[in-house]
Amino acid sequence: MRTIWVEPDGASVGVIDQTRLPHSFVTARLETLEDAAHAIRAMVVRGAPLIGVTAAYGLALALGRDTGDAALDDSCRVLLATRPTAVNLRWAVEAMRRHVLPLPPASRAAAAWRRAAELADADVALNRAIAAHGLPLIAAAWERKDRRGAVEILTHCNAGWLATVDWGTALAPVYRAHHDGIPVHVWVDETRPRNQGAGLTAWELAEHGVPHTVIVDNAGGHLMQRGRVDLCLVGTDRTAASGDVANKIGTYLKALAAFDNDVPFYVALPSPSIDWTIADGCAEIPIEERDPAEIAEIEGALADGGIARVRILPPSSPALNVAFDVTPARLVTALVTERGVCPASRAGLLALFPERTGG
Amino acid sequence: MRTIWVEPDGASVGVIDQTRLPHSFVTARLETLEDAAHAIRAMVVRGAPLIGVTAAYGLALALGRDTGDAALDDSCRVLLATRPTAVNLRWAVEAMRRHVLPLPPASRAAAAWRRAAELADADVALNRAIAAHGLPLIAAAWERKDRRGAVEILTHCNAGWLATVDWGTALAPVYRAHHDGIPVHVWVDETRPRNQGAGLTAWELAEHGVPHTVIVDNAGGHLMQRGRVDLCLVGTDRTAASGDVANKIGTYLKALAAFDNDVPFYVALPSPSIDWTIADGCAEIPIEERDPAEIAEIEGALADGGIARVRILPPSSPALNVAFDVTPARLVTALVTERGVCPASRAGLLALFPERTGG
Repeated sequence: MRTIWVEPDGASVGVIDQTRLPHSFVTARLETLEDAAHAIRAMVVRGAPLIGVTAAYGLALALGRDTGDAALDDSCRVLLATRPTAVNLRWAVEAMRRHVLPLPPASRAAAAWRRAAELADADVALNRAIAAHGLPLIAAAWERKDRRGAVEILTHCNAGWLATVDWGTALAPVYRAHHDGIPVHVWVDETRPRNQGAGLTAWELAEHGVPHTVIVDNAGGHLMQRGRVDLCLVGTDRTAASGDVANKIGTYLKALAAFDNDVPFYVALPSPSIDWTIADGCAEIPIEERDPAEIAEIEGALADGGIARVRILPPSSPALNVAFDVTPARLVTALVTERGVCPASRAGLLALFPERTGG
Repeated sequence: MRTIWVEPDGASVGVIDQTRLPHSFVTARLETLEDAAHAIRAMVVRGAPLIGVTAAYGLALALGRDTGDAALDDSCRVLLATRPTAVNLRWAVEAMRRHVLPLPPASRAAAAWRRAAELADADVALNRAIAAHGLPLIAAAWERKDRRGAVEILTHCNAGWLATVDWGTALAPVYRAHHDGIPVHVWVDETRPRNQGAGLTAWELAEHGVPHTVIVDNAGGHLMQRGRVDLCLVGTDRTAASGDVANKIGTYLKALAAFDNDVPFYVALPSPSIDWTIADGCAEIPIEERDPAEIAEIEGALADGGIARVRILPPSSPALNVAFDVTPARLVTALVTERGVCPASRAGLLALFPERTGG
């Protein structure tokens, strides 16, 4: 199963409603550009690669209604405004626009559906390649511990198949290792405030039978101090050309702890998440600020199975909800891309993507 | 109002039930040793200094029933087994035992009540002294920013008056600065899994009109990167003689971020939280592991004001709940004690507590 698909009517798109996990598995149907934009904004779909593909299908949906240049521009603007940090969104929207703009309006919609499907397939292929390139890192960690016990992998947020079209980025090598018989155990950061670790990563791993344990975001440093983490593996929403990575808020803290304890800290990314225009990730990557209610209120399952939202803050206490932080390249052991593993640096990235030299 | 008091009957103890905050302000009455032990274990009372004083009153309650040596030994054992990390508990239990053991059994109970009250009063005095010694650190931060805007202080967990008999440790200087007209704004880490920041620190600060904003535990690093934190100020459950500090899980991650961003990281502590027998905090301080249900389920207020507990994990996903971590002395800018401010080192502590030299 993929996270996004064209419905049998050929004119609407199905997605998994990720706001309902882990308590209910429910799909949602996107019929309009507005549906797609809402799905991204409300995090019905999330994860940089899946956001990109959803935006691509959003443009296909929009072109089914109005194939003109002005409408296309408007649609791109609406989608680009949904979420600011993940660069895959911009990448996908621009790829779609470049593809359909030269075409006569009458053929744009069909071309957009085809191109969106290609982007979806491409994402799966990229992630499969990331799995192949990340696998040796996990295998090496297993060798370092003389194949005794499981490789202990800490991850933050969700960079699994739910964050992409299939496979995932950071979790792709983990699934591959599990499949290939390397014992793995994943420490899953719950990832406040939206609990993508507790709700999505834990759910994914449980579905696939991958051993895992949920921890609060506060716990990773202690586990690393005690030698209970062999490597960290996370995704990224935007990678600067310098190797700085923007990822879910709190990633930077885990990278600091990994550095302090000599634990390798790997970031997995498909090349569409690289922003070649950005030299200094900390200074230049825009960081999304979301509704403070996401901190003040937590949704979960009651004992009777019903879903409820409870408030954990005093009524008069404000909250600030910053969604991402930037981990400087100096704290990243290596980047795992679809073309291979490289140092988190401009030189490292350019060695894998030489076509960007001078770009 | 204090957090613990002798009830008018002179034979039972009142406390604030901190498990009910911030949604309801409810007090609880402790009538037996078991009541006191349960209150500590279930975190009806928490915070290293308040745990110590509660244990002291627990012994007074026990001696009201049985004044014999064997019963006293048993009572000490029960209390010492409640929670392993805070050393104030051991300190208070030993101070009480030393005080009553030489007395004839008939006078032990009355002596225990008097001694427990002295320990409670002593805690208030220690915290007032910590406020006085910590104030100049906040004042200096205000000068460094040319008295422009508020001093931005990040704190983790709750080391306010709720964690002590009155005033608090880390928050004591904050209250003092606020009272003295130095503008302060506190970034309150929500402090998963038990949300002592969101539920207790935010509640305390709101009650006292101290400006504050709740953030998830993941956010502090980002705020420090952006220059939005002038200093960190936290409490501790046990301070090694070397200056390593055990505090709520996640403190270490904030200390790493503070170090990485040149933000002063201060730890406030009354001397009963110093464990002079421990040279290496990371290796030697016992770290409490609590019920994983504290991670899996979150309690809060429903829209109608009712209290509910919701589950955020998939049913089959396990969790690990480690309650504390140890921040190495090298990451601590200074310790703030009742005798003054000192470097986080053996030499620093001994300069303030010379009677421990050779001890």
